Amino acid sequence: MNIEQLVNEIKEKKSFLCVGLDTDITKIPKHLLTTTNPVLEFNKAIIDATRNYCVSYKLNTAFYEAQGVQGWQTMKETVDYIGNAHFIIADAKRGDIGNTCDQYAKAFFEQMNFDAITVAPYMGADSIKPFLKYENKTTIVLGLTSNDTAVDFETLPMQNGKQLYETVIENVSTYGNASNTMFVVGATKTDELLNIRKIIPNHFLLVPGVGFQGGSLAEVAEFGINSNIGVLVNVSRAIIYASNEANFATEAATIAKQYQFEIEQYIK
Amino acid sequence: MNIEQLVNEIKEKKSFLCVGLDTDITKIPKHLLTTTNPVLEFNKAIIDATRNYCVSYKLNTAFYEAQGVQGWQTMKETVDYIGNAHFIIADAKRGDIGNTCDQYAKAFFEQMNFDAITVAPYMGADSIKPFLKYENKTTIVLGLTSNDTAVDFETLPMQNGKQLYETVIENVSTYGNASNTMFVVGATKTDELLNIRKIIPNHFLLVPGVGFQGGSLAEVAEFGINSNIGVLVNVSRAIIYASNEANFATEAATIAKQYQFEIEQYIK
Repeated sequence: MNIEQLVNEIKEKKSFLCVGLDTDITKIPKHLLTTTNPVLEFNKAIIDATRNYCVSYKLNTAFYEAQGVQGWQTMKETVDYIGNAHFIIADAKRGDIGNTCDQYAKAFFEQMNFDAITVAPYMGADSIKPFLKYENKTTIVLGLTSNDTAVDFETLPMQNGKQLYETVIENVSTYGNASNTMFVVGATKTDELLNIRKIIPNHFLLVPGVGFQGGSLAEVAEFGINSNIGVLVNVSRAIIYASNEANFATEAATIAKQYQFEIEQYIK
Repeated sequence: MNIEQLVNEIKEKKSFLCVGLDTDITKIPKHLLTTTNPVLEFNKAIIDATRNYCVSYKLNTAFYEAQGVQGWQTMKETVDYIGNAHFIIADAKRGDIGNTCDQYAKAFFEQMNFDAITVAPYMGADSIKPFLKYENKTTIVLGLTSNDTAVDFETLPMQNGKQLYETVIENVSTYGNASNTMFVVGATKTDELLNIRKIIPNHFLLVPGVGFQGGSLAEVAEFGINSNIGVLVNVSRAIIYASNEANFATEAATIAKQYQFEIEQYIK
């Protein structure tokens, strides 16, 4: 699924919700632990419960890698289970020199059927352009993240009068275009959304930080939405861990539906 | 193996060579392709041929991930094959918020027996400190990389009068100490080595870029070595692809031995 198709899905479903499958085996309902692959069973139940309310799933690779070889297998099976009707993001935050990024692109765009990958900008164009060579795939670059220590480097003032993240977004947006590049912008930084929209009025923003991290969906909608919708809001823990009892999937569906309902008001 | 033990190994072997196992299945000798796991067979042969001349192996995770689930398995088996007598680095360049980095630490320090991992600093302390909690493990942070587009962001001037990478190295060096933190410093930037040594006189530098990328071992030795040795030089392609004929391991040994011989002159 490419960005154009994602926009169609958003309009169809009246939702720009992305469900984050950051599945931690220590946090899932105990009754699943007796199954052959508890994480996969959990993911399948969450996906079945939420697929009508969201347009995207984001798999944080760390949670799968922490399970070793089996985790990598589970990641692949989860992607296959989601299928082609959702925009599937590998939240991998990879970044390296060109010949290495070619290998990461192979891993996520060929070995697995992800539609998009998150990448880190520190090493410059080399670490981003190899992903842009893939047609109908999307490269999502870290802009301004939602964590407290984003201030350590991302918001430092540069000699050019801008903050580092502004310089990053400005430069990286020229590598590709709004049809193949998105930016990660933390929802806890709504003040900066207006500013970012001045730099990249047309690009999609992947917005994590709503829910447990305290970001406001209303503010993201007000300052983030553009003529092409332009925002994809990720919610992980608030949905997937809505309950850790036998009813976890039903509860996840309830919360996802609430988010979809709220989003529908903003899209109108 | 921790940094103190690494220093002992360096003195013992008179070598600060790290061999980079960036094994690309399209570049290994054709006769290996008929084996069950060509990449593992290749790695084992390279390891056997080079283990006396190097003190460290670095596995670039991208090349394993590009082989999917089997690649992840091969990475684990390669680490196990290397054993405990070398400092084993996961060149993973991970970086995320705290709870996610905890998972990456689990993946590389618990599920697999790596001694060290490379991490990216963009997201600040959150993306580095979780790795530092592990005793006897080493966190290697990107400082100034060896690729051309390091100039896109790493060397940009900040309002504080420093370049971004200088600010990164200065701040990150305070998160831990010289016994648990190293920095990646590209060997193609030898001019900057002197400058970096002023900021972090005591930290180890992991120096890639020697060999195919054109860095000079003599300059790295001259400007990088400190009272505790303090440099680990990585060579990947120049050693592992020294030949792609049946004699590839012997040729790899020859080149690794040449590097060790040159290094021995500098350590004296």
